[in-house]
Amino acid sequence: MGPHPAVAAIRLAVRRVLHDVLTEHSAPAPAAAGTTEDTAPGGPGRAPLVLVACSGGADSMALASALAFEARKLAVRAGGITVDHGLQPGSDLRAAEVAARLTAMNLDPVEAVAVTVGRDGGPEAAARDARYAALDEAAERLGASAVLLGHTRDDQAETVLLGLARGSGIRSLSGMAAVSGTADRYRRPFLTLDRQTARKACMVQSLPVWDDPMNADPAYTRSRLRHEGLPALEKSLGKGVVEALARTAQLCRDDADALDAWAADADPTVRDEAGLLECAKLYALPPAVRRRVLRRAAIAEGAPAGSLFARHVEELDRLITGWRGQGAINLPGRVVARRQGGRLVIRQG
Amino acid sequence: MGPHPAVAAIRLAVRRVLHDVLTEHSAPAPAAAGTTEDTAPGGPGRAPLVLVACSGGADSMALASALAFEARKLAVRAGGITVDHGLQPGSDLRAAEVAARLTAMNLDPVEAVAVTVGRDGGPEAAARDARYAALDEAAERLGASAVLLGHTRDDQAETVLLGLARGSGIRSLSGMAAVSGTADRYRRPFLTLDRQTARKACMVQSLPVWDDPMNADPAYTRSRLRHEGLPALEKSLGKGVVEALARTAQLCRDDADALDAWAADADPTVRDEAGLLECAKLYALPPAVRRRVLRRAAIAEGAPAGSLFARHVEELDRLITGWRGQGAINLPGRVVARRQGGRLVIRQG
Repeated sequence: MGPHPAVAAIRLAVRRVLHDVLTEHSAPAPAAAGTTEDTAPGGPGRAPLVLVACSGGADSMALASALAFEARKLAVRAGGITVDHGLQPGSDLRAAEVAARLTAMNLDPVEAVAVTVGRDGGPEAAARDARYAALDEAAERLGASAVLLGHTRDDQAETVLLGLARGSGIRSLSGMAAVSGTADRYRRPFLTLDRQTARKACMVQSLPVWDDPMNADPAYTRSRLRHEGLPALEKSLGKGVVEALARTAQLCRDDADALDAWAADADPTVRDEAGLLECAKLYALPPAVRRRVLRRAAIAEGAPAGSLFARHVEELDRLITGWRGQGAINLPGRVVARRQGGRLVIRQG
Repeated sequence: MGPHPAVAAIRLAVRRVLHDVLTEHSAPAPAAAGTTEDTAPGGPGRAPLVLVACSGGADSMALASALAFEARKLAVRAGGITVDHGLQPGSDLRAAEVAARLTAMNLDPVEAVAVTVGRDGGPEAAARDARYAALDEAAERLGASAVLLGHTRDDQAETVLLGLARGSGIRSLSGMAAVSGTADRYRRPFLTLDRQTARKACMVQSLPVWDDPMNADPAYTRSRLRHEGLPALEKSLGKGVVEALARTAQLCRDDADALDAWAADADPTVRDEAGLLECAKLYALPPAVRRRVLRRAAIAEGAPAGSLFARHVEELDRLITGWRGQGAINLPGRVVARRQGGRLVIRQG
């Protein structure tokens, strides 16, 4: 008799990603060799190390169990990292317990890494930044080829809605990538799997799971979305909403990539010999491409990408499409844009 | 003392649209002259006729009042149409009452038009189809240059969420256009105005409004979304959600237009001399462009656009990107696609 369908599903998801990692490890693309050299040691002959990032919650415990199972059948070494955010009393003990569970799955190496969470960008963003910094450091130090993350399709749906709330366009509707980070380090095998499958897989494998109280705390936007917003939306729109949001993410990602490529191609064609943007040529571009060229130009002059909102780019765009002699525009990062003699001049002021 | 801010806001929104209509009426673009000739009579010397489509609800009553006010100051004739969908007992009396109110605003001509609502696509879609057919007919018959519709930013937000639930990409996230229909007939002056402003404008002008019971009936998806889904989402994500959704619609519309234009340009470049799609050339396109080329090709061969879903296009795409000798693919409208000798052959079967 084969494994429970939920267990089969999580293992298949991990197996596919491990195959990708092995393929890339044994035959790195020549163009990428220079960038991966430092971070993918071992080389031919040594089995690559794949780490799982595990909070002890159902999603990442299921992921750890599948990694442990599949790695045994492939030429892959499997290890685990759990991050102690130090945000609740006793979090160090819990981290040690998660590490012990990973070790009991025969993962090796296993580490519990303590981090200090700052305040930048709010509590959720600060915790995330600290966590990824610790994972990056551990991956470098241990020479890991990949770090698996337990994000599910439900997490993806929540991320799309969070992006929607920003109203800043399709890049923020793209959610999380299946592959991301330095040297494509981070992999999300469960991105098309629902949370219920991960929970079920833990249950039938008798894996104890820990529910992070932050996930249920209505002080956090994502938690409110998970427990109130998304269920209400499902009640209004039907059960397929999570799947529709996840599919939207993938479609938006591809669309955003294509339009970014178009803007990169268009950029040199709308500049004069001195490299200044020519308003008449910008005007002739499709609005979607023009706005991306303007955004790129502002970032190139020092505007921080994270602070440059759709409304800034719209204001910039009005220098081209709604010109009525308006003055200079102040952008984040002390970047100033003005129209001068048919040229758009963007400079740090 | 000027008018109440809500009244000022609705009038400004209508004034802007009337200016556009007047500009286009007095100087039709040479390229568009051939298509507008039949539907924009009057010509130089005769003031253009602008109709308001009015259900008697707050949004369209506010719109009618603003049109009546602004038309007096401009060389515009203002009329009104109300559609009797015949879905509730006494709907004919209500339509007559709405028409009387429009006449009392000095709109002329005013008509109450009775329609028969079919069943195609569900009750909401069938009512909409019947309504627009009646508005089109009235606009043609009366020689109207434009028909104003009372959709607000809140309606737009709901439309984006309905599109999101389909998970079919950014075109369905584009919501309603500010300008649409044959000869750009339909205009939506309130698309960036919130519903509350329209209600307020009716109140301060002592305009009686009629609340369509369909708008509160939880049997309808849009009604559930309005009264449950969207408020819950606002509670989770904050008050700016409606605005963010409306801005998303505009950004997605521009992005979708640009990518459609790219696909139209790419189409002839990926065909052989016989006009067949070459798989190798399709493969080299960005995924977002390739999928649009494939979608266009299926529609050109007779697949109905409304029945061709993202999953159909994905399956088609796998003939290019995941070729493992799979057989012919059946698409809606009895269209069949197969890969043959490095070509993609799409034909009605």
